[in-house]
Formats: sequence, structure tokens, C-alpha cells
Amino acid sequence: MIPRSVKTFAPATISNLGPGFDVLGVAVHAPGDFVLASRQKERGLSFSVKTDQTHVPQDPERNVAAYVAQLMLRELKPSFGVQMILQKSMPIGSGLGSSAASSVAAAMAVNELLPKPLKKSKLLRFALEGELFACGSLHADNAAPSLFGGGCLIRSYDPLDVVPITIDSSLVWIVVHPHVVVLTKKARAILPRSIPLCSAVRQWGNVAGLVLGLARGDRDLIKRSVEDVIMEPARARLIPGFDDVKRAALKAGALGCSISGSGPSVFSIAPSMRAARIISTAMTTSFRRAAGVSSDVFISRTNLCGANVVWRKDA
Amino acid sequence: MIPRSVKTFAPATISNLGPGFDVLGVAVHAPGDFVLASRQKERGLSFSVKTDQTHVPQDPERNVAAYVAQLMLRELKPSFGVQMILQKSMPIGSGLGSSAASSVAAAMAVNELLPKPLKKSKLLRFALEGELFACGSLHADNAAPSLFGGGCLIRSYDPLDVVPITIDSSLVWIVVHPHVVVLTKKARAILPRSIPLCSAVRQWGNVAGLVLGLARGDRDLIKRSVEDVIMEPARARLIPGFDDVKRAALKAGALGCSISGSGPSVFSIAPSMRAARIISTAMTTSFRRAAGVSSDVFISRTNLCGANVVWRKDA
Repeated sequence: MIPRSVKTFAPATISNLGPGFDVLGVAVHAPGDFVLASRQKERGLSFSVKTDQTHVPQDPERNVAAYVAQLMLRELKPSFGVQMILQKSMPIGSGLGSSAASSVAAAMAVNELLPKPLKKSKLLRFALEGELFACGSLHADNAAPSLFGGGCLIRSYDPLDVVPITIDSSLVWIVVHPHVVVLTKKARAILPRSIPLCSAVRQWGNVAGLVLGLARGDRDLIKRSVEDVIMEPARARLIPGFDDVKRAALKAGALGCSISGSGPSVFSIAPSMRAARIISTAMTTSFRRAAGVSSDVFISRTNLCGANVVWRKDA
Repeated sequence: MIPRSVKTFAPATISNLGPGFDVLGVAVHAPGDFVLASRQKERGLSFSVKTDQTHVPQDPERNVAAYVAQLMLRELKPSFGVQMILQKSMPIGSGLGSSAASSVAAAMAVNELLPKPLKKSKLLRFALEGELFACGSLHADNAAPSLFGGGCLIRSYDPLDVVPITIDSSLVWIVVHPHVVVLTKKARAILPRSIPLCSAVRQWGNVAGLVLGLARGDRDLIKRSVEDVIMEPARARLIPGFDDVKRAALKAGALGCSISGSGPSVFSIAPSMRAARIISTAMTTSFRRAAGVSSDVFISRTNLCGANVVWRKDA
């Protein structure tokens, strides 16, 4: 039976993972965005937002979840309309794939209400249109892992080719989100248009090393490979205290530490839950001491599910 | 007992493997170089070359095997000298790591005569000095796989970090060496000094995809990932008929086809021995038809041993 209402969840994601700019991403368990969607008789979308966050657009013409939902309704032409509530718990401009989580949760929700729902893989296209709308660029390294879960390699954008990557189950992700805002558009604008060949070679050596290290759970190899010689040097300036936080994380036992997406969130990889708690404390303490900035911490194993349906109601 | 004489072999290698410029290489079973070395009372090196190849330097001051042997003798100061014969069966300027094979075979041979031979991993440094001497640049993507065997990722050059990569045992390597000469120095000189960020992103997506594809034996992923948007377009012009040969290889069932090292040899990856024979015929035929060039063919599974001792004699 087709449900009348659904609630979906799409998780936050850490993209780039150090060297893998635009090609690597991984899903975590929290934070994430929820979407409630119900069928309504009137065609089209009724949209509202429930959030404690500031700067979340309430206007459906400016909100990415509404944009994705409207796109799907226009293309798939169901015989009903959709009433949607975005429960936005993720901060925007955090570097955690906030727009991707909203897009993915919205796409999943509309899809579940359809008489013949599409496969997950068919939903990626809609989520990517959301990314283009929200960030001005078509990047898949948040949307793909948020939708599919696990680690994803975006081998190519033309044509789009998403390759699942294995991540050793012992590894733990730490994300520290300092309370400062960096907009993806700005963080992308400061990137170099061209790079020295020698830096590119170093970067693709690290990308390959990281993919192998994550798959094998090879701690030493991960440690050596989480090195970004291109984006991190440019973007670190946008994050007050970044150098201190990174130093503190590595000193506390992190296998790697770099900027999550376009920042300002900073991620670390820990070899165990216990180590993750120690490392996260070192990172938040360092943000406070070095830059007087408070922060939120998320500790999570790899989220292997990705976006999922929280509940369905038929009545 | 320390041998009085040894014969060593170091195999040819395919480097770059498409997208992995300077970071990926794999050892094959043939061709390769042999070195005979015997202890002699007089300190220092007596050196000669046995070869059918032209352009192989006979002068020990200009030959890379002699250079590496002399370097080792100077550094390790054994109480004896070495008489060395390089049996050079590999063509130079072929793109098959000819100088690396000579360097590695020489280093292995001198090492075997020592009272306390070094570990293989300690020999890489000497072989790399040979590469610097012969090619003017310190690249390890031939020397490392020739020495250690299998596939190698050179994750970093500073510090040097060689990571073994798994290659599915079903895969077969084809190397076609057309009878034209491309010097490594020239092939490196035509490379761009800087590259657009978007090309670099595409390349590191492919490098990661290729490493995963080779490890998993994922034929489709290999097929999509053997794509070099940076070096191949620049270097293909130096190889008459390259575009036709590549087209013929892919049409005949190759999982990927690109330039081996700095060329002019062209490699393909085949899904089986039977397929390899069909593909290699298509490639040589195409070289002849498109450019009137004859060529040698080498078909081989991955060489997991790398450089080895052929025999030891104590008398």
C-alpha cells in the first residue's frame, strides 16, 4: 500500500576527506535532516520549515528541499500534491553537506509517496540538482554518500560515476563544528583554478593511498595519506584556530585531520571510540583556546545505510 | 656461504598505468635485464655489456648499471671489487623501465656478494640514484615494482613512501613496443608544468578508481578508470599510430589501453590470456597499418616476485 505520510532522514557527510577534493565522501550517523511529507489533494507543494537554526530559507522558492521536491513533482507528475515539513537540524554553511542532506531527505520523502517509487540510484540526479541550486556547483561528494551511505568515490562527473568504497569498520569519524559560518560559494571561490603538476601528483598519490588505507584499516597508511596540499592551505585561513585544532587532534591520536567539505567543520579519523572521545575533547578545547570559538561535536562510525525512511503512515 | 658469482634478473615495468603519472607501476615477467657479478681481488668495478641492442652505453661512466654498482661499492666499502656483465636485453627509451631494470639488477647483484647483504627495501635508494642519473629525475614508479614485484603506489616522494597494491590475479598485461625511440627526458619535457584544477580532480578520481578496480578485479571499473586526461594527450603525438592502436585494443576487448611510462610502448589490460592474444594481434596489426611500424609484444600476468637471483656460485 502506498503510504499517505512518511518521515525520512538523510545524514550528514564528510566530503574531500583531506586529499580527495570533489571525489571522496563518507556518511556519518549524526547530525542529519528530517523531512515529513504527506499526500494532499491539491497538486504542487505546500512547504514549511521547522528549525532552531538561523539563516534557513523558509521561502519554498529559496529552500533546497522545496526546490528538489518541486522538481520531482514537475517531472514525475503524480496525481496528488505534497505537503512537506523540513525538520532542519543541521546548520547550513557547516561543511557537513547540509544542503545535500536536505535535498536527499526531500527526494526520498517525495519518492516514498509515489505509486511506483524510483530506485535509490535514480534519486541522485534530483539531489544533485539541489546541490547546483544551493551551492552553484554540481558536486556529488556529499549527496552520494548521504543517499547511499558508506564511503563513495565520485570517479567522474561526466558521466557521473559513483563507486562505493570500503571503509574498515574499526574506524570512527569525529566532526567538530565551530560556531562560525563559511559559505560553500566563498570557500570554492578562493580555490586555485590551476595547480602545479607536482602538487597534483602528490595529491593523487594521497587519494590512492587513502582509499587503500580506509579499505584495509591500515592506520599508518591513513595517517600518511590524509594530506591535502591544495585545498587545505587555501581554506584553513577561513577557519579561526584551524592549525592549532589539527595539531591537537593529531597529538591526541587522530589518524588524520582536515577540513570537512568546505569547512568550517573539521574532521578527524580515530582508531576507536575511546580514542575518538579523547581526540574530540582536544579539538574543542583547542578551538576555544586558540580562537575563543565554541563548537559542536559529532562522533560516529561510518553510516552504511545512508538516507532512510523513519516511518510510514497509511491512515 | 657468500657466493663468489651471481646472476640476477630485474623485470620490465609498466608505469603510470593511464592516470597514475609518477605514482603507479606494475612489474611484468618479460622483458627484463640480467646482471652477472663476481668478486675480484682488485677493488672497484670492472664492467662490460653484452647486448644486441644499439645505443646501450658501454662506458662504465655512462652506463646506469655501472653507476649504481660503483655507488654501492663506494658507500658499502666491501674488501673486494666486482666484475660485472650487464646482459641488456631490454631496449632503452622503450617506456618499460629499462634503466630501472638495469639499476635494480645491478644493485641486487652487488648486494648478493656482500658478507651481510642488505634487505631489498634498502636497495631502492641505490636504484633511484640510478634513475636520477639515467633520466634526470627521481621517479620510483619503475624501480619500485621492478625491485619488489607486484603493483606499487608511490604515495609520496618526500619522504619516499611505496605502498604495495593488490592486483587481481585474473588480469593480464600486454605491452607492445613499436620500433621507434622516445627518450624519457624528451617525453617529460613536453608535459605541462601546471594543470587546470578540473583536470586534476578528474585524474585523481581515475587514480582512485583504478586502484580499486585492479584490487577487486572489477573489469568495468578498470575500463572506466584507465583514462589519462593530462599526460596521454601530450605524449600520444610522440607515438605514430597511437590513436589507432588504442582504438584497436579497446575494440578487441582490452579493459584499458594507454602509454607505458613515457612511451613509445603501449600497454593494455586483458581479462584473460586468450583475450590478451587477440588484443595484442590487433595492436601490432594496427601499428603496422597506421604507421608502418613493426613492434615486439610481451604478454604477462603480474610479476609478484620482482627482481630475483637466477643463480649463485660459490666456486
